[in-house]
Amino acid sequence: MVDVQDVAPGRAADVSEWNAEADVVIAGYGIAGVCAAIEAARAGADVLILERTGGWGGAAALAGGFVYLGGGTPLQQALGFDDTPENMEAFLLAAVGPNADHAKIADYSHGSVEHYRWLVDCGVQFKQEFWGEPGWEPPHDEGLMYSGGENAAPFNTIATPAPRGHVPQMQNKRTGEKGGGYMLMKPLVETAEKLGVRVEYDTRIQRLILDDTGRVVGVAARRYGEEMAVRARRGIVLATGSFAYNEEMVAAHAPRLIGRPAAAIEEHDGIGIRVAQAVGAQVDAMDATEVAFFGDPQMLARGIVVNGRGQRYITEDTYPGRIGQATLIEQDNQAFLIIDDDSNEAARKTVTSTPFFRAQPTWVAESVAELEGEMGLPESSLQQTVSYYNEHAAAGADPLLGKKPEFLKPIGSPVAAFDMRGFTAGFPLGGLRTDLDGRVLASTRKPIHGLYAAGRCTAGICTGGYASGASLGDSSFYGRRAGRAAALS
Amino acid sequence: MVDVQDVAPGRAADVSEWNAEADVVIAGYGIAGVCAAIEAARAGADVLILERTGGWGGAAALAGGFVYLGGGTPLQQALGFDDTPENMEAFLLAAVGPNADHAKIADYSHGSVEHYRWLVDCGVQFKQEFWGEPGWEPPHDEGLMYSGGENAAPFNTIATPAPRGHVPQMQNKRTGEKGGGYMLMKPLVETAEKLGVRVEYDTRIQRLILDDTGRVVGVAARRYGEEMAVRARRGIVLATGSFAYNEEMVAAHAPRLIGRPAAAIEEHDGIGIRVAQAVGAQVDAMDATEVAFFGDPQMLARGIVVNGRGQRYITEDTYPGRIGQATLIEQDNQAFLIIDDDSNEAARKTVTSTPFFRAQPTWVAESVAELEGEMGLPESSLQQTVSYYNEHAAAGADPLLGKKPEFLKPIGSPVAAFDMRGFTAGFPLGGLRTDLDGRVLASTRKPIHGLYAAGRCTAGICTGGYASGASLGDSSFYGRRAGRAAALS
Repeated sequence: MVDVQDVAPGRAADVSEWNAEADVVIAGYGIAGVCAAIEAARAGADVLILERTGGWGGAAALAGGFVYLGGGTPLQQALGFDDTPENMEAFLLAAVGPNADHAKIADYSHGSVEHYRWLVDCGVQFKQEFWGEPGWEPPHDEGLMYSGGENAAPFNTIATPAPRGHVPQMQNKRTGEKGGGYMLMKPLVETAEKLGVRVEYDTRIQRLILDDTGRVVGVAARRYGEEMAVRARRGIVLATGSFAYNEEMVAAHAPRLIGRPAAAIEEHDGIGIRVAQAVGAQVDAMDATEVAFFGDPQMLARGIVVNGRGQRYITEDTYPGRIGQATLIEQDNQAFLIIDDDSNEAARKTVTSTPFFRAQPTWVAESVAELEGEMGLPESSLQQTVSYYNEHAAAGADPLLGKKPEFLKPIGSPVAAFDMRGFTAGFPLGGLRTDLDGRVLASTRKPIHGLYAAGRCTAGICTGGYASGASLGDSSFYGRRAGRAAALS
Repeated sequence: MVDVQDVAPGRAADVSEWNAEADVVIAGYGIAGVCAAIEAARAGADVLILERTGGWGGAAALAGGFVYLGGGTPLQQALGFDDTPENMEAFLLAAVGPNADHAKIADYSHGSVEHYRWLVDCGVQFKQEFWGEPGWEPPHDEGLMYSGGENAAPFNTIATPAPRGHVPQMQNKRTGEKGGGYMLMKPLVETAEKLGVRVEYDTRIQRLILDDTGRVVGVAARRYGEEMAVRARRGIVLATGSFAYNEEMVAAHAPRLIGRPAAAIEEHDGIGIRVAQAVGAQVDAMDATEVAFFGDPQMLARGIVVNGRGQRYITEDTYPGRIGQATLIEQDNQAFLIIDDDSNEAARKTVTSTPFFRAQPTWVAESVAELEGEMGLPESSLQQTVSYYNEHAAAGADPLLGKKPEFLKPIGSPVAAFDMRGFTAGFPLGGLRTDLDGRVLASTRKPIHGLYAAGRCTAGICTGGYASGASLGDSSFYGRRAGRAAALS
């Protein structure tokens, strides 16, 4: 077992020498950290970022780059989509889980247009082009896409569908070297640098340092094996990412993710959450997860997905993250895609983002009865599901799950099945409880003086469900807030 | 909002006077507390219990009284059931969730027969009679019953079915005044009193007190508005119950339980977890829940339970707690019981534990098609489910879910449906991470000196699934361990 770091706070009185200091000290140079740095510097603070790796970027620079924005952004308007903050709020409240933070969602929805403009002002570019096919990401450099199932059942009856996945314009998508996440981070980092933000790389935080009143006044860190004490004259902003790679925290809070971390970097070991809990911080949404599903959305939409009992359980034309979540949490990770030859061909002819999903089917048969037998599903279960689906699909309807007519076509022969059991991976969404200014709240509900946080070390706008772009979205949005609040404290 | 107590630890150096002291101080006089007290006293310690209410009992005295024991207890043997520790372990590992504590389950299964004898030696009586019908609790004073779905699919193919719900012999079951939980607590409390265990009632703990080395040496408490400091010469045992009634903790960790606490007492506000976390304690299984389902098990077994899509999802003859869990967590709390007149009559003729479930059906119809329409289920969905069920039930089989042949009978007419949406309630199973001696572990995985815990303020043998009796079981088992370890430290 890896030795686990002791995170009990240190006392300022025990610090013999401060090795560095700044008005605002930020731990982590990913999306939340860079946004905090920009706003803190603009508010007049001297800013120092401590980054544990050798470079900026965090998980953000490796991400697809979706930023979940709406309420009528210039990009939405230019591409002909109507949206309002209230409509965005209605979708989010329906989609993000049983423990939604209403105040945060309202705040985020109403601040979203301004946040879009802020990103553009910092140099982030969004190409004025919409991509409307099912998928995880746009295949080229398109700037807008559905990324949360807004246009699928049941959400398309709850709020007016509007795409909100805003993607910074990519370059060399195929090689991945300048993907959306990179193209989001790069101009923000340049903006921070121009503002004189300082950075210490290879520096990882160990514990917070309190003065005698209990205020957070610094942080202990390690660099090249040396311990150092860093003083924060105004405040510390924690922006160190999720606990996806802390096996014990995952086991304790979101055990279905054990052994299947995704879309996060190994540095996401929960350190920001741990150091803050050690000074009394409250956490929230600790059970919530984002869950990816490794199936080709074009194929999923044209086939049917069934569980281990041969039953359909989610409309196949929705955001694949919802399919992943339903599969892992509600279906014991049991999923099979059933698709006939024609639909499989049709899916393969579409432009998709990656050849990753081009696996051969696990089973192929001339009839559903034969397929069912080969798959070992309960007798007649799949036959019944397909016959029900086909009968209604022929009439352009899906009374069970509300799939859109464009993807409804009776399943013919020959027919194939893809074994997609265990095809899920994800990351936890829970973390420190913060107020709308990014102040870390104690279990007494009062802010902990001197301590701020943003990004996936905090509980954000998604507390159970997910939409792609929500993490880069709330991390950048509340990163700004936290940086500004720390600078002005 | 209720004001939330500050739980940051105090320092021994700041205590001007200790108002009370003992070798071992135990917080909470429920099942874990009384067992800790007995073993600590027997190991030679002077023991003081701090209880926040005016009397002993905790949630245990109000409980049905199941103690989950097996591996070949004298009661199991006398009633003709074969069981071994390995068989018990196999069942528990299959049944209790994705994050099972293997070491604890092995330890508990292998120590179970000894623990039965210990309870009997303390005066707990188990009547040598078995109750074999589906149900939540035995209707009279029977001593043994299935309480976790051991004899239902899929567990009856994974381990040899053995009933392990041991119920202390009740008196006056109908009035509830001497139910199983009371008859468990009473002799244990008498045992503790004979051993000279002292109790301070109306005394609630506020925070732990540490010496300069970080060892827990006492606890601050409040009684009648006065703060008091209580010194523990050898150790503190936290036995304060779950966080079922701490709304913020439920929201942060197990949000599906928001607004539906059950089988716990209002004192279960998570205080033991909170004071320990404030000194660096680690938690585990925080997302895990027990979920009750308010349907008559005799009716459930004889009907079919379908979700909001008209699909069956769990065998109806299993432990109703499993039905509750599957309904709340996997089916968005959507459940309907479909049962025909004959089977309804048959269920009502059986002896059941309570008339609680004798509600009238929500819908009654002459045909399933008509019923489906009245219920508003997707077109043909219920008809298809019933026709599939009936076809196989007529042949004595349930290929979909494996219900036992004795409960399989085609659904006829007239047919009724009970709307059981939202018929769930439960309590969280997560809490402090402890070792096999009840020592509270820090996030560094090392024990926190002087601090012990047991009962539902700890993560026990159930970390995702549940069996009735598991809480009184591991609370009493590890309460003993914690008390002894504290006394001998």
